[in-house]
Amino acid sequence: MDATSRIERALAAAVARAQGTDSGRGGPPRLAEALHYAVFPRGARIRPRLCLAVAMACGEDDPGLTDAAAASIELLHCASLVHDDLPCFDDADIRRGKPSVHKAFGEQIAVLAGDALIVLAFQTLAWAAAGAPQRLGILVDTVGRSVGMPRGITAGQAWECETEIDLAEYQQEKTGALFAAAAVAGAAAAGAVAEPWRLLGERLGAAYQVADDIRDVACAVEEIGKPVGQDQAHARPSAVARHGLDGAMRLLKELAEGAVASIPDCPGAVELRAHILSESQRLLPKQLAQRAA
Amino acid sequence: MDATSRIERALAAAVARAQGTDSGRGGPPRLAEALHYAVFPRGARIRPRLCLAVAMACGEDDPGLTDAAAASIELLHCASLVHDDLPCFDDADIRRGKPSVHKAFGEQIAVLAGDALIVLAFQTLAWAAAGAPQRLGILVDTVGRSVGMPRGITAGQAWECETEIDLAEYQQEKTGALFAAAAVAGAAAAGAVAEPWRLLGERLGAAYQVADDIRDVACAVEEIGKPVGQDQAHARPSAVARHGLDGAMRLLKELAEGAVASIPDCPGAVELRAHILSESQRLLPKQLAQRAA
Repeated sequence: MDATSRIERALAAAVARAQGTDSGRGGPPRLAEALHYAVFPRGARIRPRLCLAVAMACGEDDPGLTDAAAASIELLHCASLVHDDLPCFDDADIRRGKPSVHKAFGEQIAVLAGDALIVLAFQTLAWAAAGAPQRLGILVDTVGRSVGMPRGITAGQAWECETEIDLAEYQQEKTGALFAAAAVAGAAAAGAVAEPWRLLGERLGAAYQVADDIRDVACAVEEIGKPVGQDQAHARPSAVARHGLDGAMRLLKELAEGAVASIPDCPGAVELRAHILSESQRLLPKQLAQRAA
Repeated sequence: MDATSRIERALAAAVARAQGTDSGRGGPPRLAEALHYAVFPRGARIRPRLCLAVAMACGEDDPGLTDAAAASIELLHCASLVHDDLPCFDDADIRRGKPSVHKAFGEQIAVLAGDALIVLAFQTLAWAAAGAPQRLGILVDTVGRSVGMPRGITAGQAWECETEIDLAEYQQEKTGALFAAAAVAGAAAAGAVAEPWRLLGERLGAAYQVADDIRDVACAVEEIGKPVGQDQAHARPSAVARHGLDGAMRLLKELAEGAVASIPDCPGAVELRAHILSESQRLLPKQLAQRAA
């Protein structure tokens, strides 16, 4: 089964369990619908793809646990999008080309959907770890660190509420942390020594952030499924504002190469290198990817 | 060390870790402060006290894991209060006798504080389970079920957004679920067979709900630290509205006795029975507790 199918299947199973449809006794219908709406149809799934790629490079021996780790990462990503879009933050009307969760279901359901997706991410790990309980602790801690305090996504978002902000730390927490978790969790799910994989994830997260800044200025709204020009509109830090478009493109290339160089020794290093270079092309708007190739 | 000291110490350690103060590299100051504000000074801590009492009754052999389970339950309770108080839900100005988190820190920090406390609850379990990794899965799943979908706190809250609502299910999810988790997690942390403890927690949760309804009509605001008469103001279901004050008092007594009767065989059953009867007195306003004694 290819990576996309594995990820979609794992996410669908997790969401169905949260909805209660697998047990025949469903939860509250609107929140149940909102959970599905927040996770499907799929975005780029770039974080769970990284998680799977690392696990396979490490010689995965428990594919169910890998799939759960990948799904957990994506559920947390979706939760962060739902809460980021709330009126008190970005007040975003559109996400992935359709109304944001709070626009479609109201603010109450959006708060609850984010909460329930966070919880589901941890449960998903626990459900899959029955065959390898000694791997669960590091998985829970790894994904927890990447979204919690003091240096996960919530921390990054909270720096936006401070008057003084460390730009590098802010971006590492808002974006890099979950990429780092994807790489570390992929290795941990495969039973490999996990921490050496953090640097790969952090560099890919930084690359993704730069690519996102490029897309924010260079894309049509139809291509990325959310409003463009948001960084400028919200006066957010951006690699393009700092380095110009060409400078940002150079930076992206350097970061992707640095990521490849940081891959620890593992059975599938060759395939992983190819995967990462190909994924970093996918991040760019089509016309720029051709220019960069 | 007594139960109160154990619980406060475990909560303080968890919050300090989330703030980053233990590592010397703190997170964003306002969110860090809000996490502490949401958890201290202590409320009744009735859920973590139940968790500890059950673990001790089961002959706890890993007190650090018991403390983590108790702290995890209380962190989730605090998270639910922070999000429940948000303007889009209860829009509550006061909680535990002081401004609610969104009143004191703003809505953004309140959303993030709830999120970060949920994450911290799961991390706290993972950090403490290194010596007993085979117990972590059931602990993560137990606390997750009690707050997630389809039948945890978020589900209960989401039923408020539906036009048709099953009152018993709603109350079980909003209040009973976390009590059930406290009992089950206490047993699981002690390595005992955990699921038979669910009924005790559910009955205590139902008793607590009735006591809360009684307090809502019978207390002065100074005694319970939040506005009174909220059930009527929000047209929420209430045992007092349904059965009258005396009927609600009788129901509370029956539920507490039913809880005691449901205690599974365990080494410390006698002490646990006494603990539960004493705790159920603590739930009532002082003048009513004297009347009921």
